[in-house]
Amino acid sequence: MLYDVSMPIEENMQVYKNLQQKKPRITQVANFKTNGFYESEIAMNLHTGTHIDYPLHMIENGNDSSYEVLTDLITDVKVFDLSYLTDSIDLNTVKKLDIKENDFILFKTKNSFSEEFLNDFTYLGSDSAKYLRDKKIKGVGIDGLGIERSQTGHPTHLALLDNDIYIIEGLRLKAVKQGVYKMICLPLKIIGVEAALARIVLLDKQI
Amino acid sequence: MLYDVSMPIEENMQVYKNLQQKKPRITQVANFKTNGFYESEIAMNLHTGTHIDYPLHMIENGNDSSYEVLTDLITDVKVFDLSYLTDSIDLNTVKKLDIKENDFILFKTKNSFSEEFLNDFTYLGSDSAKYLRDKKIKGVGIDGLGIERSQTGHPTHLALLDNDIYIIEGLRLKAVKQGVYKMICLPLKIIGVEAALARIVLLDKQI
Repeated sequence: MLYDVSMPIEENMQVYKNLQQKKPRITQVANFKTNGFYESEIAMNLHTGTHIDYPLHMIENGNDSSYEVLTDLITDVKVFDLSYLTDSIDLNTVKKLDIKENDFILFKTKNSFSEEFLNDFTYLGSDSAKYLRDKKIKGVGIDGLGIERSQTGHPTHLALLDNDIYIIEGLRLKAVKQGVYKMICLPLKIIGVEAALARIVLLDKQI
Repeated sequence: MLYDVSMPIEENMQVYKNLQQKKPRITQVANFKTNGFYESEIAMNLHTGTHIDYPLHMIENGNDSSYEVLTDLITDVKVFDLSYLTDSIDLNTVKKLDIKENDFILFKTKNSFSEEFLNDFTYLGSDSAKYLRDKKIKGVGIDGLGIERSQTGHPTHLALLDNDIYIIEGLRLKAVKQGVYKMICLPLKIIGVEAALARIVLLDKQI
């Protein structure tokens, strides 16, 4: 079974804080009447839809997309269903999860069930991020368009990115149950940037 | 072994016919000095770099990206090394290849060895495209930025797209030897468009 956990990209899609400048713009640059074929162009913020944050997003001179290692992104992942939470993913909750060194973990939250941007989207608290950093995880994904919300100084991003832990934002996990999957995350190969738009699928593990 | 067969996306990358409007534009929309973080936006033609052409590209009311089936794009592929050819992939050449119904095939040509756009890039002749259509292949990829060159009425595209055969353009196959591989092609999930930017990897088949 294959689960497409990527957000559909269209002009009216949900974007962070409903900011108009974060919406993608698709422009027709050739059409059948004038050109005999059809061609379009897209303009979009690299943090719209399903994407990876690289350290450069929050750390001056941090690693950018050029340092991405594809074999890190084609990997087993643990999906944890935390859709019952209403605010943050707090330390008490995270401590109870089976998380080990080198794990790549994905959090399924209430965000996956909304096609509109939620002002109160579930996010990863900074204490939890520091706990995951200390656990030496490889990466963490979430189904919100941000992995943190209204935390001064972006401590969640920093705890993770300062340790080159991959952050994936904008997942769609509604159809995915808690469990272990094979993730294939292929970001566009844009060189030298702080984030990358990605298509991501999960596959059932063969037993 | 994993082969990344995607073209790096950067502002000075090679584009079809060196047309300036086909070059991607990356714009900084937030930076450390002003915002305390770094964020950028990309604008690019959907036919720049490694991408899939859907029928709508050449057929009015043809199928668009919404009809893409990911399981078709995660599949075995046959890579044929035709890098000795100087002009088109002609019918005589294609007829000698081991191609069967439902195959997904990739053509490695001299295009893979150039970082500049080649005006005389190797392309798939329309007779060859019709032969592949009649063989009922599933898809065909090439390492040029176009699968055809200066053929009036785009007969190569039409023979393939009219039969919903996937076309991949802009592959980078320099490091890949002729043989059978597992391809993972994940296009960005842009809805309702005629093409999709993609990241594509090949994996050695397990014996």
